[in-house]
Amino acid sequence: AGNAATAAGREAFRQSVVNTLERRLFYIPSFKIYRGVAGLYDYGPPGCAVKSNVLSFWRQHFVLEEGMLEVDCPCVTPEVVLKASGHVDKFTDLMVKDEKTGTCYRADHLLKDFCKEKLEKEPNLAPEKVAELNHVIATLDDMSAEQLGAKIKEYGITAPETKNQLSDPYPFNLMFQTSIGPTGLSTGYMRPETAQGIFVNFKDLYYYNGNKLPFAAAQIGQAFRNEISPRQGLLRVREFTLAEIEHFVDPEDKSHPKFSDVADLKFLMFPREEQLTGQSSQTLRLGDAVANGTINNETLGYFIGRVYLFLTRLGIEKDRLRFRQHLPNEMAHYAADCWDAEIECSYGWIECVGIADRSAYDLKAHTEKSGVALVAAEKFAEPREVEKLVITPSKKDLGLAFKGNQKMVLEALEAMSEAEAMEMKSKLESNGEAEFQVCTLNKTVTITNKMVSINKEKKKEHQRVFTPSVIEPSFGIGRIIYCLYEHCFYTRAGKTEEEQLNVFGFPPLVAPIKCTVFPLVKNEQFDTVARDISKALTSSGISHIIDVTGTSIGKRYARTDEIGVPLAVTVDSTTTVTIRERDSKAQVRVKIAEVSSIVKRFVEGQSTWGDIQWDYPAAHGSAEEENAPEENA
Amino acid sequence: AGNAATAAGREAFRQSVVNTLERRLFYIPSFKIYRGVAGLYDYGPPGCAVKSNVLSFWRQHFVLEEGMLEVDCPCVTPEVVLKASGHVDKFTDLMVKDEKTGTCYRADHLLKDFCKEKLEKEPNLAPEKVAELNHVIATLDDMSAEQLGAKIKEYGITAPETKNQLSDPYPFNLMFQTSIGPTGLSTGYMRPETAQGIFVNFKDLYYYNGNKLPFAAAQIGQAFRNEISPRQGLLRVREFTLAEIEHFVDPEDKSHPKFSDVADLKFLMFPREEQLTGQSSQTLRLGDAVANGTINNETLGYFIGRVYLFLTRLGIEKDRLRFRQHLPNEMAHYAADCWDAEIECSYGWIECVGIADRSAYDLKAHTEKSGVALVAAEKFAEPREVEKLVITPSKKDLGLAFKGNQKMVLEALEAMSEAEAMEMKSKLESNGEAEFQVCTLNKTVTITNKMVSINKEKKKEHQRVFTPSVIEPSFGIGRIIYCLYEHCFYTRAGKTEEEQLNVFGFPPLVAPIKCTVFPLVKNEQFDTVARDISKALTSSGISHIIDVTGTSIGKRYARTDEIGVPLAVTVDSTTTVTIRERDSKAQVRVKIAEVSSIVKRFVEGQSTWGDIQWDYPAAHGSAEEENAPEENA
Repeated sequence: AGNAATAAGREAFRQSVVNTLERRLFYIPSFKIYRGVAGLYDYGPPGCAVKSNVLSFWRQHFVLEEGMLEVDCPCVTPEVVLKASGHVDKFTDLMVKDEKTGTCYRADHLLKDFCKEKLEKEPNLAPEKVAELNHVIATLDDMSAEQLGAKIKEYGITAPETKNQLSDPYPFNLMFQTSIGPTGLSTGYMRPETAQGIFVNFKDLYYYNGNKLPFAAAQIGQAFRNEISPRQGLLRVREFTLAEIEHFVDPEDKSHPKFSDVADLKFLMFPREEQLTGQSSQTLRLGDAVANGTINNETLGYFIGRVYLFLTRLGIEKDRLRFRQHLPNEMAHYAADCWDAEIECSYGWIECVGIADRSAYDLKAHTEKSGVALVAAEKFAEPREVEKLVITPSKKDLGLAFKGNQKMVLEALEAMSEAEAMEMKSKLESNGEAEFQVCTLNKTVTITNKMVSINKEKKKEHQRVFTPSVIEPSFGIGRIIYCLYEHCFYTRAGKTEEEQLNVFGFPPLVAPIKCTVFPLVKNEQFDTVARDISKALTSSGISHIIDVTGTSIGKRYARTDEIGVPLAVTVDSTTTVTIRERDSKAQVRVKIAEVSSIVKRFVEGQSTWGDIQWDYPAAHGSAEEENAPEENA
Repeated sequence: AGNAATAAGREAFRQSVVNTLERRLFYIPSFKIYRGVAGLYDYGPPGCAVKSNVLSFWRQHFVLEEGMLEVDCPCVTPEVVLKASGHVDKFTDLMVKDEKTGTCYRADHLLKDFCKEKLEKEPNLAPEKVAELNHVIATLDDMSAEQLGAKIKEYGITAPETKNQLSDPYPFNLMFQTSIGPTGLSTGYMRPETAQGIFVNFKDLYYYNGNKLPFAAAQIGQAFRNEISPRQGLLRVREFTLAEIEHFVDPEDKSHPKFSDVADLKFLMFPREEQLTGQSSQTLRLGDAVANGTINNETLGYFIGRVYLFLTRLGIEKDRLRFRQHLPNEMAHYAADCWDAEIECSYGWIECVGIADRSAYDLKAHTEKSGVALVAAEKFAEPREVEKLVITPSKKDLGLAFKGNQKMVLEALEAMSEAEAMEMKSKLESNGEAEFQVCTLNKTVTITNKMVSINKEKKKEHQRVFTPSVIEPSFGIGRIIYCLYEHCFYTRAGKTEEEQLNVFGFPPLVAPIKCTVFPLVKNEQFDTVARDISKALTSSGISHIIDVTGTSIGKRYARTDEIGVPLAVTVDSTTTVTIRERDSKAQVRVKIAEVSSIVKRFVEGQSTWGDIQWDYPAAHGSAEEENAPEENA
């Protein structure tokens, strides 16, 4: 990442990454020939392969290793589901409109930009003013529409392009709305997250899991967010792939049987306390962070550890990854604790994975809205004796006393809280009667001890029924991939010092193409060998390309280095070939028949380049490195 | 598929498949707790795993083996793209409305249901009436709104539930519409196919491929279709996964270098001619079908062969798969040829893959709409000499003669067709002048031989520029999977003859879970062995479950047979275990350390059950089959 220390350096670094990504079709602005749509991007061939590799590894690392239940739900979602989840009412950003042109802006972005610009461009601001502007930036996320509007007025902020007046801020719902079926009467939305599809299936999934907790369900799929004005390139987009896990657990027991597997991991954490006291993130041992309560519980801690392993194995640099705890005001009111895996890139620290303990919120919301109980039961090994309040009204006596109002009185009696009931019991016992407020009748009646008996009875219970807590690790796959691009990218000198060659140093796991095959010179025999090697690689399931273009081998190496191909096989004889490793540029010579198994073992992580160098002789000569720069397209 | 011969048999068979699928969560009606949405389904854990396996195999079989360029484009698509493709204007079904309740119906479905019911329930219909009704059914797809409306009136068809009058049929666009960005001014749709994302990227992809043809791009993703009233369960849904290939080829050379690999395949084809003459499908050799022109070209034939291999390797029965050629009236006007892979299931023959030669239609449409030339060039090895018409006006003489009108005359001269120009040339040579109609001036002028010289000149050309043809295999993944369920499902007797056990005989490739591990009895030692085997399977990437429930081993076998798990490992000692194969129920005894490699080789197709039986001793005794039925849930 070289000179990424300064803002200009970061900008220049990002430009070379992004130029390489666009030129080599890692991504393409969608519908480019029609001048595109802001916030929509295609993955071109190498980008699509990287994405597919990341998702395969995610399935192996989470779904397979943890025995999760993977599901696949539609993107089109009826309104009732997102009404229950709160998205219809609350999934909004505050927007202002240019009062003349109607152009829309995110209110907080305009205010933030104004403050930042003022801080940058006016070095002689009074210290109180500097403090004020910094305070505004720090508290943006908490501001109401009224507060934002007041600040925009106070600072005289106008529309960036036209300098026209701006409207007051008002909420804009970020879901893409549509209509399901032909009548136009049934509103639907493109899902803003995949999680709701899992929650509404809780009952079936719990049954599928043998009515046992804990268990986790997982889903990979598209999610949508109709951003007001997308910026930050691939980081803030209108359609993206999420990979989400919903781990259902007994709220009274959030221990995790495999926590000891990750307890000794040490990595950067940024707890709430350190943020509030202006300290920086620090390296902590995961086991300690859970033991001393910094992280709320073992299951949350376990997933933090697993996410750390996932990201670093993909190729995210350890010292540019931190787990930041949400501040109290960031967290949803129902959340027990929440940590974001943030990755540092040229845009700053970017939230790529959120790991939240959402408590029972979602299941309760859907239980209430749908009327279907999304609950779990703990069967007791032995029935347990519990004391229960039993209220037994006497219908006959109530009927005699209250006639037509009997039913309301009866229901009100049965609905008494334990405290109310015990108070009435003592009054009945001392006075033989008690005054009782019946809300549905809007009056107070007199209850005598003939009309109701109130007792505490011992009962045997065979199970405990409860709403499970949900621990949710949610992965923004596109953001992870973009950060990975930045972390893996480097340049090195070409033939001359000024010529800089681009390299994506992807781990074999992630590399879009695992191996390139080059016949050294155009020649029927070498082409045949190359085709044979290609066939063997294909049947081993290894993605590769044959490059038969006439350019020099150095140029061809540079070309595959630029898309991060870890190994290059150069055919320079009909018995043996060379294999070159991308980062070291070292070469070994191997027999043709052994190529595919060597490549396969390397790609699957069963042998390292060091192992291969140990097993096979170093190669020099005909296929030697040439250090030629890639022609720009 | 047993007694699937009669309609009732087919219905009963479908019911047992669908019951098993729903009970074991292969799929779940989406948002079930809210009473669902017609045409939307979730894949539950085993269904999701089957889908993931089918897609992995698709990537291996097509993308990897053919070196295709995979891309990944968004679902949200701006209107201009789908205007160009024709979907905004033509992606419609004809709909009628109940005039009182507003309930919507597909006009052709109502008419079809009416005719079928009449044919079934009125055995004494006159032969002419029978012929008429059959003719209506056969020509439904070709009927205009007016024709459908007239038939509905003629037959007095009313709304099925209410018997109310119906509206005239009118087109309903099947795309889900939405709005991109906050202004509400930018219309978007959820894509009805993934293909357009590839077409609009043609220029970049062609460049990525080194400006060479042929090449193929591929895409897997969600597509959407807002059906008027979905029926046929999993076969007609509102959101589905497509896997599409766009193979770009020179229209003057549709040969395929690997055609010989598939030429000897023999399978059921149903060419146009056989359909029109009332014959049935027949087994043809692919090479012959291409050679005699039944299939339009080698590339189309190659893909038909590859699709055949793909489907049969998944587990589709060979004799219930046919390739049916589109009739002239079914095919889009621009298509050169089109074949559907149809799979027979309880609903009849279902179109699961379409393989169309779409000629240059799509690229031309986007070229025209976007102004970006989506073309390819063939560079000639040697420059070619071509005769070209050269029209050279003399500006000076035209200026003298026509003054202010000079420009219009000049442009009209340059725009002459070859025939017009040669006619003028001969007039100028014989008369020294010629009359010439200038449309932009709306009059005829006199051209003299000083004003223009017209010649045919030999020119050297270095390349030929053309719009490629597109051959498109398009896979409906959900339909393939549903048909696969029906083809793999069978029942066998349990403990008693009446007890029927359900089995999904999935090939290992497709099976959602590859292996179940059962400790024979609850016991610490066996549990440890089971956990060790599980760890080894996990690190080999093999999906499996451990079943520690206390039920009998026979019941546990039946339970995993029902979700199609091919192998069951029963732990009945601490040194060796048994492996049981699902379909034969045969068992072998193997050492614990060998389990994961045996399972891995079997799952990856490197060894068959026969090989395993050859290598290891047959097992009997403690883990013997018990043939107990699965309790119903």
